[in-house]
Amino acid sequence: MTQPSHAFSAAERDAVYRAIHERRDVRSQFLPDPVQPEVLARLLTAAHHAPSVGFMQPWDFLVINSREVRQQVKAIFEAENTRAAANYADEQGARYRSLKLEGILESPLNLCITCDRSRGGEHVLGRNSILETDLFSTCLAVQNLWLAARAEGIGLGWVSILDQQKLAAVLGLPEQVYPVAYLCLGYVSEFLAKPELETKGWRKRIPLESLLHGDRWGQPLAAAQMNGVKKINES
Amino acid sequence: MTQPSHAFSAAERDAVYRAIHERRDVRSQFLPDPVQPEVLARLLTAAHHAPSVGFMQPWDFLVINSREVRQQVKAIFEAENTRAAANYADEQGARYRSLKLEGILESPLNLCITCDRSRGGEHVLGRNSILETDLFSTCLAVQNLWLAARAEGIGLGWVSILDQQKLAAVLGLPEQVYPVAYLCLGYVSEFLAKPELETKGWRKRIPLESLLHGDRWGQPLAAAQMNGVKKINES
Repeated sequence: MTQPSHAFSAAERDAVYRAIHERRDVRSQFLPDPVQPEVLARLLTAAHHAPSVGFMQPWDFLVINSREVRQQVKAIFEAENTRAAANYADEQGARYRSLKLEGILESPLNLCITCDRSRGGEHVLGRNSILETDLFSTCLAVQNLWLAARAEGIGLGWVSILDQQKLAAVLGLPEQVYPVAYLCLGYVSEFLAKPELETKGWRKRIPLESLLHGDRWGQPLAAAQMNGVKKINES
Repeated sequence: MTQPSHAFSAAERDAVYRAIHERRDVRSQFLPDPVQPEVLARLLTAAHHAPSVGFMQPWDFLVINSREVRQQVKAIFEAENTRAAANYADEQGARYRSLKLEGILESPLNLCITCDRSRGGEHVLGRNSILETDLFSTCLAVQNLWLAARAEGIGLGWVSILDQQKLAAVLGLPEQVYPVAYLCLGYVSEFLAKPELETKGWRKRIPLESLLHGDRWGQPLAAAQMNGVKKINES
């Protein structure tokens, strides 16, 4: 059978899977080398080509070089992280505090990806039933950028321990603009073989088989499909 | 300079960008050929390797082969779409109704990716400040799967015109489980060169340059970085 012209070669397909499986949430391995403008441009272009509800393209990109802005964001993180640490007692608390959870100042570049909730006017195609689809679209842009970064050898970490109202104030965001993702980017000394929270015993990877349902919740997946999953995950 | 061992070759990098730029939201080009179990397994494994807040892995996957379930979902779509179409008057309304916005019955496979909002217990690392980070993580899994599908020659469409409460009832979801994405998958006759909503004149792609800010909202991007963006987007 001849391949259609849109088919990927096996090597191209494997490269996409390599990016997916070797991508990491990076906090500790940043090198100071600057990200070149053309590389940054490819990453931003990749994000901008994410799917969006009704072709809304609700995102903006704040490229943060300023050390002053980053120090203000770091202070927001510190306050939130102190609050979060208080949720864990004793050993778990000590383990929590030992984790490095952001690279705001060590990474050479910070990036905030926002969502303008009013873009496209009152009626955005496909956003009638689920208002959050604009935020979801913005997340798809984040993942495009994250995978492109891995392919460029650039590590990326998403800092989620932030008060979004305070962050919006520091960044001067208009009222209708929500800061979905605050990201740290830079070249890295290495990409860890496994997620850091897995290696450090915080949480285990859930077996994929236990997350699969057939047709309706709680029904078994078709046997042939489950066998396919077992085969892939044993290899 | 020698490349670090984690570096992608230029060909691998280009393959990742090819998946990102040639990915489409597919509604009309589905072929009836079934998706083989091992291919489906690779797609699900890719989704499961998305980043998630606190390694929460909040997702489950409902693989929907049943025609009966799909007909029920299609009925939910029809009701919501009729409601949505009423938002557009005259010519815009006629244009809206002419668009094909889902492939629930024509695609050989439907997939619902859900988010269990209670997974990981009361305190999930990194989810203290922004409760929606579990939904955002689930979206990152969707995009992993979407790009992997493109590399496998499989088209994917996200159906967002659905009442999520009715959808949850049809799929029998527990109360704490939210259906983030209802997806249609299958091999396709072609991937369109551009998004369908762009080609049909519904909305234009926004120039990337107009979405970029430096350090704070509304401040210009550094000149070298903006020149990089212009160079990439002219080529």
